[in-house]
Amino acid sequence: MTQTSDIGEARVRVRYAETDQMGVVYHSNYVIWFEVGRVELLRQLGFTYKEMEKQDHCHIAVVDLKVRFKAPALYDDELIIRTRLKNVRSAMLHFGYEVIRESDGTLLAEGETTHIVVGNDLQRKKLPEKYLVPFKKAVVT
Amino acid sequence: MTQTSDIGEARVRVRYAETDQMGVVYHSNYVIWFEVGRVELLRQLGFTYKEMEKQDHCHIAVVDLKVRFKAPALYDDELIIRTRLKNVRSAMLHFGYEVIRESDGTLLAEGETTHIVVGNDLQRKKLPEKYLVPFKKAVVT
Amino acid sequence: MTQTSDIGEARVRVRYAETDQMGVVYHSNYVIWFEVGRVELLRQLGFTYKEMEKQDHCHIAVVDLKVRFKAPALYDDELIIRTRLKNVRSAMLHFGYEVIRESDGTLLAEGETTHIVVGNDLQRKKLPEKYLVPFKKAVVT
Amino acid sequence: MTQTSDIGEARVRVRYAETDQMGVVYHSNYVIWFEVGRVELLRQLGFTYKEMEKQDHCHIAVVDLKVRFKAPALYDDELIIRTRLKNVRSAMLHFGYEVIRESDGTLLAEGETTHIVVGNDLQRKKLPEKYLVPFKKAVVT
Repeated sequence: MTQTSDIGEARVRVRYAETDQMGVVYHSNYVIWFEVGRVELLRQLGFTYKEMEKQDHCHIAVVDLKVRFKAPALYDDELIIRTRLKNVRSAMLHFGYEVIRESDGTLLAEGETTHIVVGNDLQRKKLPEKYLVPFKKAVVT
Repeated sequence: MTQTSDIGEARVRVRYAETDQMGVVYHSNYVIWFEVGRVELLRQLGFTYKEMEKQDHCHIAVVDLKVRFKAPALYDDELIIRTRLKNVRSAMLHFGYEVIRESDGTLLAEGETTHIVVGNDLQRKKLPEKYLVPFKKAVVT
Repeated sequence: MTQTSDIGEARVRVRYAETDQMGVVYHSNYVIWFEVGRVELLRQLGFTYKEMEKQDHCHIAVVDLKVRFKAPALYDDELIIRTRLKNVRSAMLHFGYEVIRESDGTLLAEGETTHIVVGNDLQRKKLPEKYLVPFKKAVVT
Repeated sequence: MTQTSDIGEARVRVRYAETDQMGVVYHSNYVIWFEVGRVELLRQLGFTYKEMEKQDHCHIAVVDLKVRFKAPALYDDELIIRTRLKNVRSAMLHFGYEVIRESDGTLLAEGETTHIVVGNDLQRKKLPEKYLVPFKKAVVT
């Protein structure tokens, strides 16, 4: 059974710096918000990505990115980034994202990222068990 | 027959600001480089995106983005962004991209973006003929 | 007498995208955080910058920026941006900032920005009274 | 006598991502362009900042930043960043910058940055002679 806590909820407010001259958010910023969402999901699961890197020398390098933009985010909008693990293998993590405008619940964008686990040398490695087991449990299909 | 000039070639050098603490380029920057590539392709085809917006009130809003990351770009790398039109319809443009490290020819990333044409009001509109005809001719499949 | 509410307190968490290959936050990001601080101070004073732009066609364009960097912000740090109005004239606003690491209270950076008020045409204009009066009251020297 | 080659000339074209909803370049981008200018000045003097970091473990950490914004840079503008060394001491570098629109020669912004030299441990160190001597010669007051 999927628990609510398996879907990360991060909040960001759109910064002026993130807008462009079309008067909406420039699209690369969603990719950064996905990162914010990913990190908050990990925190909700009891881990910090900072410690994954520092203590366990595990970095999750993005190998694939997909975004579908549905409606523009606007300056000062409060956004919710809902993030879930879609698939977990020993050296691969697959995340899914939804970016929602809080005021009216509009789905602004959805996306996916695939990551491989790499060490400090940027070579592939397996995720330690302490991460792998809870991550697999947290998968929301 | 496809002409070389139908594939845009833009050059960027990796800025320190674009790196992250993993010692490589942060992945959202490729999305910005795709934009640089897109704009240079248009310029090569005889158009400036600036004038498309200003004179013809045509904006090309991204609705779909896909990136596959193959190898990391590093600080101070000189990169070539090769951009082509993959498909053109009256209110839709589909671009393809390759990001290549100039020094050794390594393909670092490839991607695609789909755009709809919108007016100043962000509502869909058709691309004027003066763009549509040459854009269709420039499609490289 | 200065009231606490005249000093804006905004919170940001350092994003991976904001770090660079030196392993610390890239310095231009502080400038963006100053903007976050400025906007939150205005909100605390009862205004939103969004409405200043939309309803009253007042934009505050930066003409001068100073930052002194004291200690590096690190990935995942929670930061407090303390913002105050240092000086207000009819067509000029002067803000002061401190960026503090929440966990240990370290002052990471301090800075100042000077802004002129401009209309939609980017020409100087005076700040409407509804802003000018409370802004002057909120000055913390 | 000051030689032309002691003033770095870097060129950038304004990216859409660098604009904001005021229709001009967002101000933090100038700080990134200063970095571009700094790196090109070093290259013109025969050095690459990349090698300074990699081979000599010298990083130049910004401790002070000042920018005066004169006129807005616009989308697709070609800009020249003119950079010079204003002062050099054994563990301190002071750069000056001008950002000029190429088409009409307008000075858009000018600024200064002060940097301390630090090692991989982020602790202060002296600049090796191989940099210090030519850097001092290149000072343009």
